[in-house]
Amino acid sequence: MNVLLVYAHPEPKSLNGSLKDFTVKRLQDAGHTVQVSDLYAMKWKAVLDAHDSLAKEPGELFYPSRDSKHAFENGLQSKDIELEQEKLLWADAVILQFPLWWFTMPAILKGWVERVYAYGFAYGVGEHSDARWGERYGEGRLAGKRAMLVVTTGGWESHYSSRGINGPMDDVLFPIQHGILYYPGFDVLPPFVIYRTSRIDETNYPAVQDALGQRLDKLWTTAPIPFRAQNGGAYTIPELTLRADIAPDQVGFGAHVEQERDGYAVGSSYGASARLRTSASPVAIPD
Amino acid sequence: MNVLLVYAHPEPKSLNGSLKDFTVKRLQDAGHTVQVSDLYAMKWKAVLDAHDSLAKEPGELFYPSRDSKHAFENGLQSKDIELEQEKLLWADAVILQFPLWWFTMPAILKGWVERVYAYGFAYGVGEHSDARWGERYGEGRLAGKRAMLVVTTGGWESHYSSRGINGPMDDVLFPIQHGILYYPGFDVLPPFVIYRTSRIDETNYPAVQDALGQRLDKLWTTAPIPFRAQNGGAYTIPELTLRADIAPDQVGFGAHVEQERDGYAVGSSYGASARLRTSASPVAIPD
Repeated sequence: MNVLLVYAHPEPKSLNGSLKDFTVKRLQDAGHTVQVSDLYAMKWKAVLDAHDSLAKEPGELFYPSRDSKHAFENGLQSKDIELEQEKLLWADAVILQFPLWWFTMPAILKGWVERVYAYGFAYGVGEHSDARWGERYGEGRLAGKRAMLVVTTGGWESHYSSRGINGPMDDVLFPIQHGILYYPGFDVLPPFVIYRTSRIDETNYPAVQDALGQRLDKLWTTAPIPFRAQNGGAYTIPELTLRADIAPDQVGFGAHVEQERDGYAVGSSYGASARLRTSASPVAIPD
Repeated sequence: MNVLLVYAHPEPKSLNGSLKDFTVKRLQDAGHTVQVSDLYAMKWKAVLDAHDSLAKEPGELFYPSRDSKHAFENGLQSKDIELEQEKLLWADAVILQFPLWWFTMPAILKGWVERVYAYGFAYGVGEHSDARWGERYGEGRLAGKRAMLVVTTGGWESHYSSRGINGPMDDVLFPIQHGILYYPGFDVLPPFVIYRTSRIDETNYPAVQDALGQRLDKLWTTAPIPFRAQNGGAYTIPELTLRADIAPDQVGFGAHVEQERDGYAVGSSYGASARLRTSASPVAIPD
């Protein structure tokens, strides 16, 4: 199978760098073909702007969505965008690996999403009608592919528990897993989260690597998070709120996850992350 | 009073551009001093990397947190970072204005946060002990200042309601309002959110502007979102989970907001956003 690893860490000789190298090797050893978009190494242009469309004249007004649509439809996208879209179409599975900085992905990766996820490619796909609100959230150009986050954080697992001060990790990651991955059609696997990264040393690193390896071995068999499909009957259209008979007592992010499907293990929140435990941690970029 | 407006939209002749100009004028007319960090116009460097520290030698390993600390403590930060920190210290209130792209801020603004929020400035402040876990979430260098989000989105308000498919807007914004603004000490006002932006035209724009103007007039009197202070007794330390007797039945983001304080209006979720209603919308960058 084909795997695309989109990787965002500035230092190759870091925990993230080691895990990236390990991931590539583990997947290749299992017979898969791997491409890596190492965004820092590529000096990826993080900022979405008028230069992303080759047709743009200086002085013309810039409409982010409209211009993205025009460039996508007419082969006028910046080459770097086109190459990443080709990798996404080539891939059977996509892994986004990054350190959690200020409770979401690094800017360079956010800019990859904004620029590569063009209008007509990742959004604005399909018809809007009384029965369908475009192809998104379970449908879309990337449907049939799998995606998984590999995330490191300096914070403790308890800080991200159901009553932890940062909010539950599953909720912190919801805008990415649901809003960025499920939106254009990916089946999203539970994330692989490494907590308290500063305590990982030569002694406990092998256990981290081994846990990640086991997740990679099960990339094709792990049950995805059972997000609810937008056009599958659970939502009213065009309001896109859950129908009254669907999870009637639930509100918030968790309501968009089916509570029973295919033996998917539902924990305290909606995910079932692989989690590693190490000991006390100093401060890293929050987190 | 002094107001810093951090603004992230690529097109001056846009809804966001108009609202930015209006905000500056409204605040100045009320006697306030305003500085604008117009990130696109400034060609803000979005990517955190080794160049952010002036002391870094080529070939040295780059540790994002450790190097940020060293640069901050020794006057070795990149000048653009230092200038933004000075603006933050100067301000009595900070407004972040941006279009919601893929359920969070644009990459250029995320990169402003990552680079300006240095170790020792916005995190890694204060002592860690059995009684205190640093100065954060209610304490910190920016304590005593107010902050507010002004956010535009193409999506409908119902899509962001308590059972809306995108998740409640208050939850979507929690990692920013709680994790980026409350974290270094800001009092965070309810956000000003404009939905279905593509339907705003010359006819209904004045109502949008007027609603924003009223929020700006009350910048100093609006009750902040009553997030719970980390070191105020509600959390166990160092686990940083809510004590068993605090909101015993609650989990998730909403548990970190006091349900009663100073007459703060608690809605279906935790916020009390000013919301505008317009009619049916085509697609904009999600959202």
